[in-house]
Amino acid sequence: MRGEGEFGLIARLAERLRGAGRSPSRTPVHVGLGDDAAVTAPTGVTVTSTEALVEGIHFRREWSPPPSIGRKALAAALSDLAAMGSEPGEAYVALGIPEDFDEARCLELYDGIAAMAADTGTAVLGGDLTRAPVLMLAVTVVGHAASPEAVVGRDGASPGEAVAVTGELGGAAAGLLLLERPELRRSLDAGVADALVRRQLEPGPRIAAGSALASAGATAMIDVSDGLGADAGQIAAASGVRVTVDLERLPAQPGVLDVAAAAAVDPADLTSAGGEDYELLVVLPAARVRNAVAAVGSTGSRLTVVGETGPGEGVELRGPDGSIRPPAGFDHLPVR
Amino acid sequence: MRGEGEFGLIARLAERLRGAGRSPSRTPVHVGLGDDAAVTAPTGVTVTSTEALVEGIHFRREWSPPPSIGRKALAAALSDLAAMGSEPGEAYVALGIPEDFDEARCLELYDGIAAMAADTGTAVLGGDLTRAPVLMLAVTVVGHAASPEAVVGRDGASPGEAVAVTGELGGAAAGLLLLERPELRRSLDAGVADALVRRQLEPGPRIAAGSALASAGATAMIDVSDGLGADAGQIAAASGVRVTVDLERLPAQPGVLDVAAAAAVDPADLTSAGGEDYELLVVLPAARVRNAVAAVGSTGSRLTVVGETGPGEGVELRGPDGSIRPPAGFDHLPVR
Repeated sequence: MRGEGEFGLIARLAERLRGAGRSPSRTPVHVGLGDDAAVTAPTGVTVTSTEALVEGIHFRREWSPPPSIGRKALAAALSDLAAMGSEPGEAYVALGIPEDFDEARCLELYDGIAAMAADTGTAVLGGDLTRAPVLMLAVTVVGHAASPEAVVGRDGASPGEAVAVTGELGGAAAGLLLLERPELRRSLDAGVADALVRRQLEPGPRIAAGSALASAGATAMIDVSDGLGADAGQIAAASGVRVTVDLERLPAQPGVLDVAAAAAVDPADLTSAGGEDYELLVVLPAARVRNAVAAVGSTGSRLTVVGETGPGEGVELRGPDGSIRPPAGFDHLPVR
Repeated sequence: MRGEGEFGLIARLAERLRGAGRSPSRTPVHVGLGDDAAVTAPTGVTVTSTEALVEGIHFRREWSPPPSIGRKALAAALSDLAAMGSEPGEAYVALGIPEDFDEARCLELYDGIAAMAADTGTAVLGGDLTRAPVLMLAVTVVGHAASPEAVVGRDGASPGEAVAVTGELGGAAAGLLLLERPELRRSLDAGVADALVRRQLEPGPRIAAGSALASAGATAMIDVSDGLGADAGQIAAASGVRVTVDLERLPAQPGVLDVAAAAAVDPADLTSAGGEDYELLVVLPAARVRNAVAAVGSTGSRLTVVGETGPGEGVELRGPDGSIRPPAGFDHLPVR
């Protein structure tokens, strides 16, 4: 019987989202939560992406409190909009709830979604709830841009352009190592360790930086979710270029090198293959780099040139000694 | 390592969807599958809804072949657009894949999605793939309408209007009984039984009927997914009216009464509480009924008046003897 159960929870979740009150949509909303569908009136072009997170694959409940799970799910989806240089608009959240995840935890999870929505100006306008064997979220986000030309895809890079990355890399992978092996914290300052764990559990989408890079003439862009090398491979394949990245130029988050040393792993595995940092990897004409560095700097992030494009295909990761290695990345779905 | 696995499967799924070739979007598509996000240029208003289906909750793999699961997932999502009177546009599919669901099955599932997309003029423009403990799908659909006024919500009904339903009810619930208790088939013609099972496994969204009803002056509309009584309760609550439905006027799919008799259940449980028929429950001024019946008839469906709205609240199901019962419906999420 569908009675108090699902309908009641939906009403309380909607209350939480409305209560946040700080997340107006950039698009006029005619019908929001509570009908069969939401109705909006977008102008320009819309930019839409879907991201699914599954307990045991993308997060563990023993490490992530419910608000962090909610924040990360929306952030991961919004990161794809950032990678297009698009401004976030609306979000739709499908939530699969296991038996042992009670209503209080559902509400906390929605508090995390509402907080990330408020931080980014995203309006949560709909979703679906269902029972599921594990906690899972599928978040669809809709962004907006003035015109198709204002959106940066993966396929616009040419040979001879600069390859750059926002912010710092390796933090999410180092944070995961710290969660898996708490004894590694001994070699780190507590604040530095906490920041690494936070990067793993609560990454932020680089929306302002993505928008700045789109305006600054980016020709191709992608978010670093599967590991910089693997994500660079997407740009290489879509644009028909070779991407060369100097491993020693990759900007590591403070503490990443210490964690790598303590864990006896190659630091390049964390910075170039770790993924989940949700920074932006961008290609742009060399002549635009200076302006782009300033534009990204003004958003509170930074832009580091890490390589260049050339004729050919695929990705080369160049070591300090000039050695070349192929990229590695995390596969959420090893298919046999 | 994310290598051949996820990226390879994504490429092959995209091929299947493009191969379908019969599902152009009603909206100009600037970027489709294969980038961080899809880019479209909608006009008028967009209508967006999300639906999640989880193995063991919404379907069983031993009953539903992969193409049926794909068809049903997209149909269930599109049904929400039909209930707004909106034309389908784009779809985004998040798929959680268990270890024992191999690539061939994934491709078959996408064939089902592609077939439903082609049937309804929906373009599948994006999605996400992940490992999951059971098969699960979250489908977000985007529809289009000329203006906010052209969209029918749940909240526009007034007292004194007619309540009507498209097509036939109870088939999905009767089909489920036949799947659970195959011995019940003995009391039925094989073709009739097959049609009931098909209604359960492969329902169709009533898009043309929804569009016709929106044009014919519907004041409130919802799809019958949780059971007619429960869904009527949504309209009653949103519109601030009482909805009264005569159980004996509910149009039963052929075979439903036979299954009810063979299973010793009240036929009204199948027609008024079964859900998943994905017909449309609609409220409209009595003066508009005649035109609406003709309009729905011209879509190949039919419209049956089953009750009326009045002042007050809630839903009354009226038996042939004048007795009143409260509505029941299926709750996908009994929360303790």
